[in-house]
Amino acid sequence: MPPPPTAALSSSSSLCLFPFSSYSSPKKTQLGFCPSFPFTRLINVTPTRRLMTCSAVSIEKETLISHRPHSFLRETDGLDDGSVRSRFLRMIMEVQDSVCGALEAVDGAGKFKEDAWTRPGGGGGISRVLQDGDVFEKAGVNISVVYGVMPPEAYRAAKANVTDQKPGPVPFFAAGISSVLHPKNPFAPTLHFNYRYFETDAPKDAPGAPRQWWFGGGTDLTPSYIFEEDVKHFHSIQKKACDKFDPSFYPRFKKWCDDYFYIKHRDERRGLGGIFFDDLNDNDQEMLLSFATECANSVVPAYVPIVEKRKNTPFTESHKAWQQLRRGRYIEFNLVYDRGTTFGLKTGGRIESILVSLPLTARWEYDHKPKEGGEEWKLLDACMNPKEWI
Amino acid sequence: MPPPPTAALSSSSSLCLFPFSSYSSPKKTQLGFCPSFPFTRLINVTPTRRLMTCSAVSIEKETLISHRPHSFLRETDGLDDGSVRSRFLRMIMEVQDSVCGALEAVDGAGKFKEDAWTRPGGGGGISRVLQDGDVFEKAGVNISVVYGVMPPEAYRAAKANVTDQKPGPVPFFAAGISSVLHPKNPFAPTLHFNYRYFETDAPKDAPGAPRQWWFGGGTDLTPSYIFEEDVKHFHSIQKKACDKFDPSFYPRFKKWCDDYFYIKHRDERRGLGGIFFDDLNDNDQEMLLSFATECANSVVPAYVPIVEKRKNTPFTESHKAWQQLRRGRYIEFNLVYDRGTTFGLKTGGRIESILVSLPLTARWEYDHKPKEGGEEWKLLDACMNPKEWI
Repeated sequence: MPPPPTAALSSSSSLCLFPFSSYSSPKKTQLGFCPSFPFTRLINVTPTRRLMTCSAVSIEKETLISHRPHSFLRETDGLDDGSVRSRFLRMIMEVQDSVCGALEAVDGAGKFKEDAWTRPGGGGGISRVLQDGDVFEKAGVNISVVYGVMPPEAYRAAKANVTDQKPGPVPFFAAGISSVLHPKNPFAPTLHFNYRYFETDAPKDAPGAPRQWWFGGGTDLTPSYIFEEDVKHFHSIQKKACDKFDPSFYPRFKKWCDDYFYIKHRDERRGLGGIFFDDLNDNDQEMLLSFATECANSVVPAYVPIVEKRKNTPFTESHKAWQQLRRGRYIEFNLVYDRGTTFGLKTGGRIESILVSLPLTARWEYDHKPKEGGEEWKLLDACMNPKEWI
Repeated sequence: MPPPPTAALSSSSSLCLFPFSSYSSPKKTQLGFCPSFPFTRLINVTPTRRLMTCSAVSIEKETLISHRPHSFLRETDGLDDGSVRSRFLRMIMEVQDSVCGALEAVDGAGKFKEDAWTRPGGGGGISRVLQDGDVFEKAGVNISVVYGVMPPEAYRAAKANVTDQKPGPVPFFAAGISSVLHPKNPFAPTLHFNYRYFETDAPKDAPGAPRQWWFGGGTDLTPSYIFEEDVKHFHSIQKKACDKFDPSFYPRFKKWCDDYFYIKHRDERRGLGGIFFDDLNDNDQEMLLSFATECANSVVPAYVPIVEKRKNTPFTESHKAWQQLRRGRYIEFNLVYDRGTTFGLKTGGRIESILVSLPLTARWEYDHKPKEGGEEWKLLDACMNPKEWI
């Protein structure tokens, strides 16, 4: 008798160096969370051949724990010391609580199942999944914290300040929240959001070299049917969050979102967009922390009223079949294009955490063409030709 | 009002140069059909950086036609002239007929829908899809013929015979049959098979340079539940077909199949294997034509008796849910790893033809673990630890 199948390891943040060719200026090192799910990845944007090979960044193996800790920060970080990293972490933990609480209230029956883990030297994560509730087919809300070390060649900024001396490995910190929510009712849209913060330590052997930091994230809506008032509401909340900080943010991040969630082989977007940004460090750090906080706190007011309104709308088998086809497209995007998912799969992350972004059920029909002018056709048209909703 | 969504073009064989790093000797040019479906691709196996960029091979746009033609060969090829290409094409057309006939007989209700097309200068294809029958959820059986021209640098063999003169573009011919069959009953397995033949013309400006040719293909079984007698029957037919030609074929191609259909991020195979080979030209060409014919003709006796036996087996919702989970794995393999599918998506082929290999419905549950020792666990174990079935 062969040995029993082994379960996937309870890792939730493997890291990988890879070229980040789009949406980023070259020669810049960045760490992003998996846009679809909670995986933290170290991304080197320099488009050189040498860096195309994935190189693992040193990170300790995690341990499953029975209770979530007060914080995932190292004690030397001072826990609640008022630093950006500690405030960002506190923020995403609060957002995880508030989003999960709001979703359980909307669902009425389903409860989130929690898996938490830590690492010996600090860092860890909390995955929460609600599956087969009354309202939600599958909903995942994960946070993750990583302390890692990146190879010196990835730390370009340090180079300006060293002469012949080769810089040593650069420790970094990363934290993020990531979530995908798939309701059952075909008139209630899918939501994805993800906010993340990255910071390097000052390299010990390159005195004066600056700490690098940046923010990334976004919130986007994927309905199967368009209720214009819902989409306008959703985009208005995104715009309101953006406008509090910079009038250029919403148009810029709305376009970024339309460009990112593009299923090239279908020439259509995954959904009706929202906002998406990455590698953001051109503004004041405090301002961007407030901005990310505002965006994350906007998830519930942007999404929950829509689900409340649509969760009990009567539907036919045909509506459900169309939702299932659109879920097929969601899967195509995530498995074929989504950078976090594809690199997560390649670099041996915790598969269940990466793929919790996939819907519970999906469908592929041969050569399906919605009837011109019908509701399904209108959705497809809006996915092919992104609109200004507000 | 924006313009209506445009349908995907009726192309069914775009071609693409790309490095074929596994299972092939380097510095060899080859053309393979999409292992999951009917797309013909020109594959350059030289692992140089320069060739990593996909370069389109010149090929004419196809035209949908209402009736299938007698042949897809160019008239200058002499149609039924006894050449390997004409006999291979006749063989796959006959196999398409016989397989579709046998499947309609098994199904009882479902009928294949046919889409056929030609190209002005020769070549074309026939796609046949049976969807939502009594027995089959989705079954596709496609053939495709391509006349193309590959850049001279792809034609390594010609180089030995030229001196300073740069060789010109090399015309090639490729034909293949490709099929995926997904039954409804969770106890009836999914089947995939694909057989293909490739041949270059002798280059005009490199006299004496040999024509290159090779065969590729395979047949593999993907059940959700193991009936050992079914798997033994299936593998026995594969072995019998192989043994008629070379006793080394079955063990070699069985292992090749286990290695190819590997879902790395799950550390499991898509199914229970069969045979798979590519780039085969080390044997006599007539012998390999007979071998490919034998394999293709073995599809019906290898598969149909199993479906007949299992198509009406009573099942529960739980059996169906497990089949749906395994279909999720099938999709993961095809979208993430399958070379034909991934390059087809990247190079703008006819999406509906590429993705007809995906099942009608599939399912992803968070952290699903089959009960140790149960029937689902046994299947998973066999996918993780490939067995010798005969």
